Amino acid sequence: MTRRARGPVSRRALLTGGALSVGGAIGVAAASASRPEQRVPEVSAANFGGQMVPFYGAHQAGVETPAQAHAAFVALDLAAGVDRAALRRMMLVLTDDAARLTQGLAPLADGQPELAHVPARLTVTFGFGPRLFDAAGLGDRRPASLEQLPAFGIDRLQERWSGGDVLLQLCADDPLTVAHAQRMLVKDSRSFATVRWVQRGFRRGRGMQDDGVTQRNVLGQIDGTGNPAPGSPMFGGAVWTDTGPAWLHGGTTVVIRRIRAELEQWDAADAVGKEFAVGRRLSDGAPITGQRESDKPDFNAKNELGFSVISEFSHVARAQVGEDRLRIFRRPYNYDEPPGADGTADSGLVFASFQRDIGEQFIPIQRKLAEADLMNEWITPIGSAVFAVPPGCEPGGWIGEGLLK
Amino acid sequence: MTRRARGPVSRRALLTGGALSVGGAIGVAAASASRPEQRVPEVSAANFGGQMVPFYGAHQAGVETPAQAHAAFVALDLAAGVDRAALRRMMLVLTDDAARLTQGLAPLADGQPELAHVPARLTVTFGFGPRLFDAAGLGDRRPASLEQLPAFGIDRLQERWSGGDVLLQLCADDPLTVAHAQRMLVKDSRSFATVRWVQRGFRRGRGMQDDGVTQRNVLGQIDGTGNPAPGSPMFGGAVWTDTGPAWLHGGTTVVIRRIRAELEQWDAADAVGKEFAVGRRLSDGAPITGQRESDKPDFNAKNELGFSVISEFSHVARAQVGEDRLRIFRRPYNYDEPPGADGTADSGLVFASFQRDIGEQFIPIQRKLAEADLMNEWITPIGSAVFAVPPGCEPGGWIGEGLLK
Ligand code: HEM
Ligand code: HEM
Repeated sequence: MTRRARGPVSRRALLTGGALSVGGAIGVAAASASRPEQRVPEVSAANFGGQMVPFYGAHQAGVETPAQAHAAFVALDLAAGVDRAALRRMMLVLTDDAARLTQGLAPLADGQPELAHVPARLTVTFGFGPRLFDAAGLGDRRPASLEQLPAFGIDRLQERWSGGDVLLQLCADDPLTVAHAQRMLVKDSRSFATVRWVQRGFRRGRGMQDDGVTQRNVLGQIDGTGNPAPGSPMFGGAVWTDTGPAWLHGGTTVVIRRIRAELEQWDAADAVGKEFAVGRRLSDGAPITGQRESDKPDFNAKNELGFSVISEFSHVARAQVGEDRLRIFRRPYNYDEPPGADGTADSGLVFASFQRDIGEQFIPIQRKLAEADLMNEWITPIGSAVFAVPPGCEPGGWIGEGLLK
Repeated sequence: MTRRARGPVSRRALLTGGALSVGGAIGVAAASASRPEQRVPEVSAANFGGQMVPFYGAHQAGVETPAQAHAAFVALDLAAGVDRAALRRMMLVLTDDAARLTQGLAPLADGQPELAHVPARLTVTFGFGPRLFDAAGLGDRRPASLEQLPAFGIDRLQERWSGGDVLLQLCADDPLTVAHAQRMLVKDSRSFATVRWVQRGFRRGRGMQDDGVTQRNVLGQIDGTGNPAPGSPMFGGAVWTDTGPAWLHGGTTVVIRRIRAELEQWDAADAVGKEFAVGRRLSDGAPITGQRESDKPDFNAKNELGFSVISEFSHVARAQVGEDRLRIFRRPYNYDEPPGADGTADSGLVFASFQRDIGEQFIPIQRKLAEADLMNEWITPIGSAVFAVPPGCEPGGWIGEGLLK
């Protein structure tokens, strides 16, 4: 343990603005060190509830972390007058909260501390929206392509699902863990920001399928096959930023698109049409030119009539890229809001895409999909937001220090 | 197997109204018998996804069933002109859907059949609201106390969370399973009804804690201790209806109250005050007069000053009843909707209470709580609905046949 012992910062001082007058020298006490708390053994034989993802490290957790079952994406708008010093205070407090909550410990002012004792692989991932750089007086440190996406012809964007100055991405295998962590973080951000939107999402629950099985999304498709594998060099090369402003190196960027699924029409389509639109089979996710999910799609294969088996307008054909560094890493969740009175579903994906650089990687793919993708008949982007995701921090540090310190 | 073989009913005929002209003689083919379907082994080593709750039986599932992690409560309003014959058709179709879905099989017109293959202890429980009896021309068979609850002083009821002619209570350990089942059932009810409200709820995820551990609710309280134990004679005597109209014997009734938790104020209160309000400890759920969660509260215990240790205005003191047959069975879920812009939580319980008879059991307790319950400072009923829950059915039968046949 090389960590230096530091006195814990007065939380009230941080929230009221006193502490940071001494500059960036104040660190956040490591949650596990500063307040040994007795954990009630409220975990199961399967022990999914007791599992923890380390908070500290070179990268923030919640990107490479195998996707947990539940997510809340919270976008905050900074209050007028929140400047670099205030942002520093906010990130100190929120980092401390996150460091504790992810390790099954209650934050300092937690009114329901017992709810913190089931971490269930909780991760808290912070992102900075384009406007935050102006508020901090650091416009020159904003990554060049970190701006709201250009308009695409397929977009039907709604303000209520778009934009935001700060992102809190909370993921855990337990829904109550997510709800409680969200509440604590939102509460502690209140002196600095208002809530712009919250998007809740879910995937198959933990223990419902074997770990590592690719999930099905709400359209019934096996979704995630073409992703760079977490932990692989290809993942690192595509996801962790290594160009542009130095403070973001080791971080990444995230694009969050809320994409409505037109389930009525999707239901009406037959399986062949659905598989043709994507280029992969519904039953097992294999490319329609292959046998197994892991088989590479063969974009040159032709049928008896000489046509491509995988259409050039299929989703996977449009979405593929020539170079590994140009790949994106998709970490989507399903949403499912109450249907309309007539029973029409309000369902789709909270589509989260991580990449080194939005301009180099995400936009070209999204452009090709917007131009022509057979899936467009059934999917409609209704929200859009972009955030820079700072690198991780070490005990004693805080998220965003490379930018805001 | 004593089940008689019957030809499966044409689904189209049911939806368009043709089939029931032959009266009650048409049964629903048992899901497991009528269409052997190959189940893709998309289940985990923990095998939570593959677990199934039997659909057929003397009682409907989803009452005595240990509460699953996720729930959707869907209230439908019958369309104008839906009469007894139409209700019969609707219940035949929905029973068939439920029988299949709960056993991991896709309903007949399922656009995403693969999503059905993770049953995850799915249960579908049907309820009939007061107005359904008038629509069916069966006003005389409505249980006397099945009517919207009297107004209570604490109520701040909203139309959007209240009333309803038909209830679909869907519960499963997997959120995608619930979403998919909801979609299938809502879709097949569309010829007969519109969606009045949907309330989603959650509890601790499966495998997060040991089975049988009492859950904590979103207020951080251990919630469920005082319930009659499922499977016990006390449970049967309190929950399964055995008086009133014969068709409901073996069934029950459910009251669904949406109860907002005033979490801001709750946070501000100290632990002693919170424990005094309920009469039980936050840490372990033990009565404040006892040591263990299972200890009986001692309502006669006095402190040094001669005052009752458990206040007569505490929630458990007000909610206790003299007789086992007067108990209610609570099966609540948490809700947590996006907070307001200022960060104020929109959170609470979808409080579902099952009992033989609403008038004899639920109303007296609710009245005593409304009159004086220290918890009222922090909880506000904002929705209310009541339903009769018909008994279960055997393979070949359908839910509600005792009333509608
Ligand atoms: C509701 C919206 C969407 C749905 C339902 C969807 C579904 C799918 C499915 C089923 C696959 C094949 C399996 C897999 O590799 O995961 C796939 C692949 C992919 N999708 Fe999407 N997708 C959606 C939106 C998007 C968007 C907005 C983008 C990027 C702008 C995108 C980029 C990709 C990429 C890069 C692949 C992998 C292609 C390859 O094999 O190289 N998708 N998607
Ligand atoms: C948000 C609303 C509510 C909350 C947070 C809540 C919480 C609690 C808690 C913590 C207990 C003690 C542990 C237990 O036995 O489960 C309890 C007991 C109980 N509550 Fe509630 N409750 C709420 C609403 C209601 C309502 C509306 C009713 C009925 C009208 C009710 C009836 C009962 C009963 C019968 C008991 C058991 C009492 C006994 O030990 O005999 N509760 N509740």
